[in-house]
Amino acid sequence: MAGGTALKKKPVTGMRDILPGEMELRQYVLEEIRRTYRSFGYTEIETPVVEHLENLLSKQGGDNEKLIFKILKRGEKLEAAYGAGDKEGLADAGLRYDLTVPLARFYAENQAALPNPFKALQIGPVFRADRPQKGRFREFFQCDIDVFGDASPLVEIELILAISTVLNRIGFGRLHPFRIVLNDREILRGMQRAAGFPEEDFEKVCISLDKLDKIGKEGVKEELLSAGYSEDMIEKYLELAGNPGTEPGDVLDLGKKLEGCIEESVCPNLAFIMSSVRSAEDVPVRVEFDPTLVRGMGYYTGPIFEIRTEGFSGSVGGGGRYDKMVGRFLGKDTPAAGFSIGFERIITIMMEDGTGEKLSAKKTAFLLDKKLDRERTAGALREAMRRRNEGETILLTHMNKNRKFQKESLSKEGYSEFVEFFV
Amino acid sequence: MAGGTALKKKPVTGMRDILPGEMELRQYVLEEIRRTYRSFGYTEIETPVVEHLENLLSKQGGDNEKLIFKILKRGEKLEAAYGAGDKEGLADAGLRYDLTVPLARFYAENQAALPNPFKALQIGPVFRADRPQKGRFREFFQCDIDVFGDASPLVEIELILAISTVLNRIGFGRLHPFRIVLNDREILRGMQRAAGFPEEDFEKVCISLDKLDKIGKEGVKEELLSAGYSEDMIEKYLELAGNPGTEPGDVLDLGKKLEGCIEESVCPNLAFIMSSVRSAEDVPVRVEFDPTLVRGMGYYTGPIFEIRTEGFSGSVGGGGRYDKMVGRFLGKDTPAAGFSIGFERIITIMMEDGTGEKLSAKKTAFLLDKKLDRERTAGALREAMRRRNEGETILLTHMNKNRKFQKESLSKEGYSEFVEFFV
Repeated sequence: MAGGTALKKKPVTGMRDILPGEMELRQYVLEEIRRTYRSFGYTEIETPVVEHLENLLSKQGGDNEKLIFKILKRGEKLEAAYGAGDKEGLADAGLRYDLTVPLARFYAENQAALPNPFKALQIGPVFRADRPQKGRFREFFQCDIDVFGDASPLVEIELILAISTVLNRIGFGRLHPFRIVLNDREILRGMQRAAGFPEEDFEKVCISLDKLDKIGKEGVKEELLSAGYSEDMIEKYLELAGNPGTEPGDVLDLGKKLEGCIEESVCPNLAFIMSSVRSAEDVPVRVEFDPTLVRGMGYYTGPIFEIRTEGFSGSVGGGGRYDKMVGRFLGKDTPAAGFSIGFERIITIMMEDGTGEKLSAKKTAFLLDKKLDRERTAGALREAMRRRNEGETILLTHMNKNRKFQKESLSKEGYSEFVEFFV
Repeated sequence: MAGGTALKKKPVTGMRDILPGEMELRQYVLEEIRRTYRSFGYTEIETPVVEHLENLLSKQGGDNEKLIFKILKRGEKLEAAYGAGDKEGLADAGLRYDLTVPLARFYAENQAALPNPFKALQIGPVFRADRPQKGRFREFFQCDIDVFGDASPLVEIELILAISTVLNRIGFGRLHPFRIVLNDREILRGMQRAAGFPEEDFEKVCISLDKLDKIGKEGVKEELLSAGYSEDMIEKYLELAGNPGTEPGDVLDLGKKLEGCIEESVCPNLAFIMSSVRSAEDVPVRVEFDPTLVRGMGYYTGPIFEIRTEGFSGSVGGGGRYDKMVGRFLGKDTPAAGFSIGFERIITIMMEDGTGEKLSAKKTAFLLDKKLDRERTAGALREAMRRRNEGETILLTHMNKNRKFQKESLSKEGYSEFVEFFV
């Protein structure tokens, strides 16, 4: 054994190494995401992976707040906390569980140096100490676009067009036709008001309603009954939310039914978003109203949306308006809305499709005889550099004894042309 | 105050937010790095940001091991460690301080699924709880290329050509002519042997020698004298290392002087690397021998190299051969060599040059009157989508009351063309 005890080869529990095949697909998708979002005027920023614990534990992250990786204090501060028996005080920072909380902090901190409205693109790893399970990892990438300082529906229209353009450009949309379902938190609130649920129970009732696709109408009804709500209220709610149609006109009709329980502009605003997205004909995208859509995070305040694909449960992306979050940092509310593409989900599906294998450009391997002299080696290097500068991929490597096997192995890596340099 | 206590706006101590201007430059440089390294046949991989503490504390990281951000255990394991008063046992993982240790683990774990030799590219954040100071951050990016399973000097030749090509492609080399200085850990060892230093003091003596550019010849001499080495030994060493010339021929001459104290192949190997790099004429790169080059990390075993630029102290990149590291994971040594570009250093210099400001492609802003009707809005959206699909950047936003000020602000963001949509 070289150099003492053997070290650990496997990654830390729940995290993973990414091999070249998947990495090529990830980079291809990330490049298309960046190129597309940039063309909409979103500008990229970056926040630290490490965030203040106070910010992470500010009741904006829902259940994610239970899954934080905390970072131990160092030096004297650690000694002090330990010595004082202050268990909670051992850590002062944590790994971010999403990109939205750090982005709101970023905007609050840097507002003066940013344009108004500010269109942000952020891509990076986030961390959740979730129970490890197949296809679910404790470190994963998120790719978010967000707009601060603009309350108009143009924001949502552009968010939806941008994400649809990405899904089509990477070839995902062709294989997996998707649709974007929309709702508005204010419509949910209006329906609860109209049905008679108490104002202060809004979040709580939403949590039950969010389970509709998992436990069905009967399950939701049972849950609400056992929480003490009357059958009458529940029936009224389910009738309002049950099948009003998916078109912009249906949103307007529901708005009329909810008159007095909802601000007048809410339904026309959502209908305008839907019809505007449809009218941008260059992007073939299906948008549908769904009054049962809730979206988990408590911070949403207005329109919410989610991307659904045939054949896959759950979503491949989603977002919405959250006009109250920046206020937690700044003391002054700022309109905000964002969309997070389900990057890891999309990569998993595309790997299963075999998309990764079709990406490679032409690659050439130069095989050099091990005894090649300095002059011939220099010639091979010059030729390799010339072709690389023209954009080609040239691998320069020594010839193995078993050249046939070597070429077969290289073929599997995508090398289709071989140039041999003999003594 | 909206929603309770104000949260923290500033990033965690020693870390930082990256704003759009710098981010644009970073992404441009990263794209060129990826494109160039790929053309050499390096394939990208990724390892988790979180690594086993045992691996991070395996005495391969030098002083960096003192700067690890440790991650608190969770649930029962944390309770157990805390209850048992096991202060060392509170953490079981940490944030990586470089990309090399995780890469060696990655290679040991995934070897069977990787080509041989394996040419890796890895880009990502690393973390060091260093004392915060100007221009030095606790989270920063590294970009490494490494080759496993190939002991031939082709590896070093290609590493040097690749990094030189990157520096030239991003325009850095034109403004800041650079040179690559080379040495070999075995030459250092041979010179120490020839001067009479004890074999087992090699690392210790290297640490003193590494200070030559900081404390000068006299300072090094003093330090070695006070460590108990004889003036005779020190003089002999400094004579060997002092000014033998920078050319491949000078390496060979030094090799002759060290006969008996060094393996015969060491100096011809380094001279071959130097002359081969020079002969790849398409890359104008200066390579120079420097027998005083030490490189900090103890894990290097063969050729070492560093990029230096006029007018800047320190290096903008460096690397070397480390044939013993994989053995710590695998129990069996594997040839390995790598090169790390000084990404953050280069970005800082290029920001000062103003390179970031010259990058922007043409950008157009569509300004929409706030009262624009659905039809005209749809028309603007269609036109924006058409031009985005042709590769243009189109920002779609509402017209402000003060249109002149709005356009001036947008100009600062790089928007040079404005299209106005009135009612």
